[in-house]
Amino acid sequence: MSAAGPKPVSIFDVAKQAGVSHQTVSRVINDAPMVADTTRARVKAAIADLGYRPNRSARTLAGGAVRSVTVFTFDTSLYGTAETLRGIEDAASAAGFTVLISVLDPEQTYTDGDILGRLSHDGAPAIVIAHDETTTQARRILRKAQPGAVVATGDDQLSREPGAADWLVPLDDRVVAKRATRYLLSMGHRTVHYLAMPGKARRQDGWAEALAEVGIEPPEVVQSGWTIGSAAEAAAELVADPGVTAIMCGNDDLAFGVLHAAHRAGRSIPGDLSVIGCDDSPMAAYHVPGLTTVDLDFRGVGRSAFELLRHKLEGGPDPRPSWRSPELVVRETSGPPRQ
Amino acid sequence: MSAAGPKPVSIFDVAKQAGVSHQTVSRVINDAPMVADTTRARVKAAIADLGYRPNRSARTLAGGAVRSVTVFTFDTSLYGTAETLRGIEDAASAAGFTVLISVLDPEQTYTDGDILGRLSHDGAPAIVIAHDETTTQARRILRKAQPGAVVATGDDQLSREPGAADWLVPLDDRVVAKRATRYLLSMGHRTVHYLAMPGKARRQDGWAEALAEVGIEPPEVVQSGWTIGSAAEAAAELVADPGVTAIMCGNDDLAFGVLHAAHRAGRSIPGDLSVIGCDDSPMAAYHVPGLTTVDLDFRGVGRSAFELLRHKLEGGPDPRPSWRSPELVVRETSGPPRQ
Repeated sequence: MSAAGPKPVSIFDVAKQAGVSHQTVSRVINDAPMVADTTRARVKAAIADLGYRPNRSARTLAGGAVRSVTVFTFDTSLYGTAETLRGIEDAASAAGFTVLISVLDPEQTYTDGDILGRLSHDGAPAIVIAHDETTTQARRILRKAQPGAVVATGDDQLSREPGAADWLVPLDDRVVAKRATRYLLSMGHRTVHYLAMPGKARRQDGWAEALAEVGIEPPEVVQSGWTIGSAAEAAAELVADPGVTAIMCGNDDLAFGVLHAAHRAGRSIPGDLSVIGCDDSPMAAYHVPGLTTVDLDFRGVGRSAFELLRHKLEGGPDPRPSWRSPELVVRETSGPPRQ
Repeated sequence: MSAAGPKPVSIFDVAKQAGVSHQTVSRVINDAPMVADTTRARVKAAIADLGYRPNRSARTLAGGAVRSVTVFTFDTSLYGTAETLRGIEDAASAAGFTVLISVLDPEQTYTDGDILGRLSHDGAPAIVIAHDETTTQARRILRKAQPGAVVATGDDQLSREPGAADWLVPLDDRVVAKRATRYLLSMGHRTVHYLAMPGKARRQDGWAEALAEVGIEPPEVVQSGWTIGSAAEAAAELVADPGVTAIMCGNDDLAFGVLHAAHRAGRSIPGDLSVIGCDDSPMAAYHVPGLTTVDLDFRGVGRSAFELLRHKLEGGPDPRPSWRSPELVVRETSGPPRQ
């Protein structure tokens, strides 16, 4: 419809003609209570006079063709979250679903009503990108209220929950970090240090397990925030220590912070210090030196989550998992220790 | 509510007991048409038997306390978009609003019904982060249908539209790029080349104007995609040309691509080549060398957009614009040309 076309009648025109608020018109359209009969009659007369037609969302509530899925997620600016969302959107769009994203604040506590109230209607399909406590709690609330209409992406640890195959698309963060740590040990590093992002402990578990396998007591974990800057600050002491020859980082952004701190401290990469990230974000290949990291197919996980949800809603054959296995990508920030 | 608490009655329990789909239960709850009277009676009996209480979203349709704003946006993984969203979310959360994000695909064309159908109900408040043609079209559709309940962020050029102060929070991309280009010229570069991101021509306009001011014919614009990789590829020829001494980039990601291409081509930064980005994304300060760029307060713009929307919905004094002015941040990728 071109901007130059005739102006369609809006809910505001109806409200004006009936002398009520647009919320009242909405209530009348949706046959909701709390509208006096005389007001209802006046609004209905205005609707008829102006030839107003409620929009598609009203039709959807009445069982129309538009279907939507609500995605509950943590910070959308993080690479893993953004890519998972893209995967969900791609698959949903191909299937004719509209995606609504609801971002949960990790600092807040949400009641059942808070979470369910973010759905467009009772029983509306939902996907939870479960990366932290708040999103994990949202997943529990949704699973409890509407098990037939919710799936989640999350750590492999959740696979242990009963019936998880029915609602979970897992990504094994523990195994990923274990593999990267083993690789560093295989090159002769006597130990590997760990810079942790907030909340997500499974990668840290994998790192500790790889060390334990070969009888190494894990050194103290250094805690970082989510930003590159917080990582540079958190790692300043670690990179200045000549006894530290290898650092595994919770994700790529943290690794970029460590590389910056190492640069300031005058340590050469990878001669003095090996650094490994996790995610293979777009910058990893274009950083100088190129960042060694683990490629995680978040987009494939997102697509698979949508396909699993669709299977639950519509039946049909079980969808095949369709994401790439995580893979170590060796670039220029890792190598054997000196001598 | 703990996971161990008593299981609340869900819409699925009602559906099972009444022998209907959960969509049918939803229709009955919302008093929607297309349900046979006998079915409606059966569902209502099941609701009464089980003591089922519709969730908050149903109450909202009936005029309850939860308010939501739908944000229409382009790719949420881009820095500017992600930060604007954060600003909207921060302000909305403080005011007790829930945010739903609807991502529009720049490859698709949307009808009025497609856009309005993504609102939770007719007249639902909306913010459009208008960065490209698709989001700009969405803004037009929403403005036409419900002018009292929509605001947009977007380029300053939109300020020329009648009554724009009533719905627009502008960010002047043209002036920002002009300032950065003038700075390069002031250091003695004989011209400045431009690497363009898709769609967003206003920064390019500013670059061309700064050159025109001093009588320089703008060199041919080099077109990039959105990714660092596409920028590295697009700029390969440009950075290999020893006559090129300064490149202004559409955003920081493009600048990172150019810096990588320059590294591969063996050109020193900024001795052989000055590179400037735009956005001041988190990596800019931690890249080695540090990226000269323009700091844009997207988060402040997002907060201001929400405050303007709230003012339209609730009245009260005009909200003051509360975002920082764009500022050139000189780091290590810019300097005078050799000799």
